[in-house]
Amino acid sequence: MDDLSLAELGERESLRRTVARLKPGEHAIVGSGDDAAVVSATDNFLVSTDTLVENHDFKLEWSTGFDLGFKSVASNLADIAAMGATPTVLVVAMVVPKTTKISWLEAFADGLQAACDQLSPGSAVVGGDLASGEQVVISVTVHGKLDGQKPVLRSGAKVGDVVAVCGPLGKAACGLTLLQSGQQDLIRSYDDWVAAQLRPEPPISQGVAANLAGATAMLDVSDGLIKDLGRISKASNVNIEIDRSLLSGYEAMLDLPAQSLGLQTLGWVLQGGEDHSLLATFPPSATLPRSFKVIGKVVAKSEHDVLLDGQPVEDTGWDSIAGN
Amino acid sequence: MDDLSLAELGERESLRRTVARLKPGEHAIVGSGDDAAVVSATDNFLVSTDTLVENHDFKLEWSTGFDLGFKSVASNLADIAAMGATPTVLVVAMVVPKTTKISWLEAFADGLQAACDQLSPGSAVVGGDLASGEQVVISVTVHGKLDGQKPVLRSGAKVGDVVAVCGPLGKAACGLTLLQSGQQDLIRSYDDWVAAQLRPEPPISQGVAANLAGATAMLDVSDGLIKDLGRISKASNVNIEIDRSLLSGYEAMLDLPAQSLGLQTLGWVLQGGEDHSLLATFPPSATLPRSFKVIGKVVAKSEHDVLLDGQPVEDTGWDSIAGN
Repeated sequence: MDDLSLAELGERESLRRTVARLKPGEHAIVGSGDDAAVVSATDNFLVSTDTLVENHDFKLEWSTGFDLGFKSVASNLADIAAMGATPTVLVVAMVVPKTTKISWLEAFADGLQAACDQLSPGSAVVGGDLASGEQVVISVTVHGKLDGQKPVLRSGAKVGDVVAVCGPLGKAACGLTLLQSGQQDLIRSYDDWVAAQLRPEPPISQGVAANLAGATAMLDVSDGLIKDLGRISKASNVNIEIDRSLLSGYEAMLDLPAQSLGLQTLGWVLQGGEDHSLLATFPPSATLPRSFKVIGKVVAKSEHDVLLDGQPVEDTGWDSIAGN
Repeated sequence: MDDLSLAELGERESLRRTVARLKPGEHAIVGSGDDAAVVSATDNFLVSTDTLVENHDFKLEWSTGFDLGFKSVASNLADIAAMGATPTVLVVAMVVPKTTKISWLEAFADGLQAACDQLSPGSAVVGGDLASGEQVVISVTVHGKLDGQKPVLRSGAKVGDVVAVCGPLGKAACGLTLLQSGQQDLIRSYDDWVAAQLRPEPPISQGVAANLAGATAMLDVSDGLIKDLGRISKASNVNIEIDRSLLSGYEAMLDLPAQSLGLQTLGWVLQGGEDHSLLATFPPSATLPRSFKVIGKVVAKSEHDVLLDGQPVEDTGWDSIAGN
């Protein structure tokens, strides 16, 4: 069968074929096809939105449609996990050139579904919008439920709390550096690191686990460890001290590709975004979920938001407007 | 004070200035600033998303930032009204060139707030995302509540129901034709029609009124009367007969600009989108809200979805991929 473009198929048929690849999930009472979806809820809900823009957040020569569907869901699910909550439903607004092939959009839908199934079973895409434009833009809005728990904000860190991470640090950034190197042999050899950039797998279920364990503040590391630690320290009016020796496991995970590229590992660990790992603070008495590893502690407010082995660290993480 | 660009201000300060212009509304428990907003709810919620793309859905030489903020909220609120529900909270994902001036983004925020205040008091923008790209893209996701009512779907129209409209038909399309004409004297003379295109004011509260009056099917007229009637007829497996004499009031409203442009009014009424008026079916016994005007009736399924005075009408409404 011919792989037609969206312009050749028209909006209605393009949407029909795409939506047909999505499963309704556990939470939709009325799904796609009306002016709005109806979502089951008995209590307050959470909502967050995040956008990926072609040539700013991804390149079509590096990411397949499947990759982009997977990543856009994964990064959004992490925002709900970071509130200590469980993702429920997502809606996806897509802008694509009208020359886009339907096979690309179908693969994108498969990526959306795969991320829901793999990272947060029961969650689902229940609605969306398809429009044409000059560059691909993917806006995902995700919802979550608290099941009677309080949300974990950025502003609750207390002096004396431990700082802990669940998931890799710098792995997605290492994958990006590999892609940017253009060295196909390295990209093939280190496909696991490249996959961390293209299809991140944040530990979604551990957000609720952290909440139940008493996490006082949490977010997902989307723009780099130092930048995101700075957000907690500003919102909570505290400082955070990181112990480099506690980062050694994260650095070790990046050692092989770093050696091949002739680069250091620490920059990726401190400044690399897009892992969407969970970064949380816990009271010193808390029993942390086993997936969380301590990397530092919360101290009283002074001049610098974040210190590494007692020294201030410059925040050079991602700025979504400047694009660097 | 200098009108700096977003690139000069950076993401954080650009967001801070924009968010500062938005009021929290009645439904946000946790607003902007965390990974997700927390929204009060006691029951199922509705969600819908809609995107506006520069040079496809709007032109920056015709629309101010305020206009676009207003229109993007208005069109989304109409999707909740069309389900017979009350809008609660919105999240807004924006893509803008990094050369965009902060004054433009501030005016956009003022337009968002003005539309919430004017069209659905109590509703509010509670979160968003700001990213840079080559063209302006505005993705709004809107939520609503049913307050114990059932949602009004597209699929409930029954043979014998009356078909009725609340709000103008063709006025926004007439405004678009005026803008496209480039005739500045006409654009100034018919500023009310132009405003209907740039800042539509759909009758949001009448969605709940229609629901309480027993509406069996409803949607908002976003892509043209015939196209949107076709959606109800397909979803409900019925046909719809429109009586042209009942459209005369809508045509009369467009008579002056039509004469000035040397055009007929019927095309705008039948095919013009973007009024976001409410289009509903009601049982013949229902007492319609006074704002709804009957334009036709629901009849048994036969060959053509929509008939005007007994003749099939071609659907030439808006296709968001083809862009025509």
